[in-house]
Amino acid sequence: MIKDLKDYVTTIPDFPEPGIMFRDITSVVQDADGLRLAIDTMEKLVDDVDYDVVVGAESRGFIFGTPIAYNERKPFVLIRKPGKLPRETEKMDYDLEYGSATLEIHKDAIKPGQKVLIVDDLMATGGTIEAMVKLIEKLGGTVAAVLVLMELEGLNGRDKLKGYRVESAIKYEGK
Amino acid sequence: MIKDLKDYVTTIPDFPEPGIMFRDITSVVQDADGLRLAIDTMEKLVDDVDYDVVVGAESRGFIFGTPIAYNERKPFVLIRKPGKLPRETEKMDYDLEYGSATLEIHKDAIKPGQKVLIVDDLMATGGTIEAMVKLIEKLGGTVAAVLVLMELEGLNGRDKLKGYRVESAIKYEGK
Repeated sequence: MIKDLKDYVTTIPDFPEPGIMFRDITSVVQDADGLRLAIDTMEKLVDDVDYDVVVGAESRGFIFGTPIAYNERKPFVLIRKPGKLPRETEKMDYDLEYGSATLEIHKDAIKPGQKVLIVDDLMATGGTIEAMVKLIEKLGGTVAAVLVLMELEGLNGRDKLKGYRVESAIKYEGK
Repeated sequence: MIKDLKDYVTTIPDFPEPGIMFRDITSVVQDADGLRLAIDTMEKLVDDVDYDVVVGAESRGFIFGTPIAYNERKPFVLIRKPGKLPRETEKMDYDLEYGSATLEIHKDAIKPGQKVLIVDDLMATGGTIEAMVKLIEKLGGTVAAVLVLMELEGLNGRDKLKGYRVESAIKYEGK
């Protein structure tokens, strides 16, 4: 039987909190075929997108962003939690369900006018991706597309990303 | 001029603390040629190594581990900080210069007898890599080789990894 990409995802109920159905990507990538299929499927979704740079956020964004950047011969730019990037950074605060968080990017990582492909494992509420978009635009970059492995449609992340192209390899109806 | 892999590394003095020469890998991967050269050089170093699984630690290990796993059609297994992995884990505490830290791996991620390639960005004192080795062996895996982009030879990480094959793409004499 040929497995579908979704078949590689393990769902863990009540992690990290009761009521949350955690969609686990580690089971995808710890299978050689799953990893291949995930990366290849994601790349195909943005085949027609013109971009200069791949940007991924710490830490699961690194897993999917780097192979795509490598395959497509593009630079890979890291967005990280505060205090991790050694050179001059631009910062962006954003709201979480409880409290807030900050993301950082190196100021020299994106040049004005560069077209950026944002890669992440998951789009839930879209809050993290929205913060990434703002960081990239603050540096003068343009977001060519947002590409995620999984999208939780019930959390309406696309509402935060109106006007941007968003592609997801796996869609879940719920939250 | 053809650039050497080392030419892509930026060195930041006194980060994150005074006296430390921080070797920045973000400047390597945010250059399309640098990223290509880093991954290709690393892969070549373990060309003759027989392994079943690539293991990388959060979060910079993901950057180098995933493209190698993808290229070589191997599974990629994550080692993460505590509380991040949703399924049943094995834990390992290890000492840092100040205090200690813990790493986790999913119990089902490595099957007894599997041969593992450990991939990381940096070998400094070797403490993190030693903890990774112990986690893998606790699950019944065998470490086929340790592969890092950079090695700080002055910190003698190899002393902690006697009997294991260690390969590094870039060597710095100092700390």
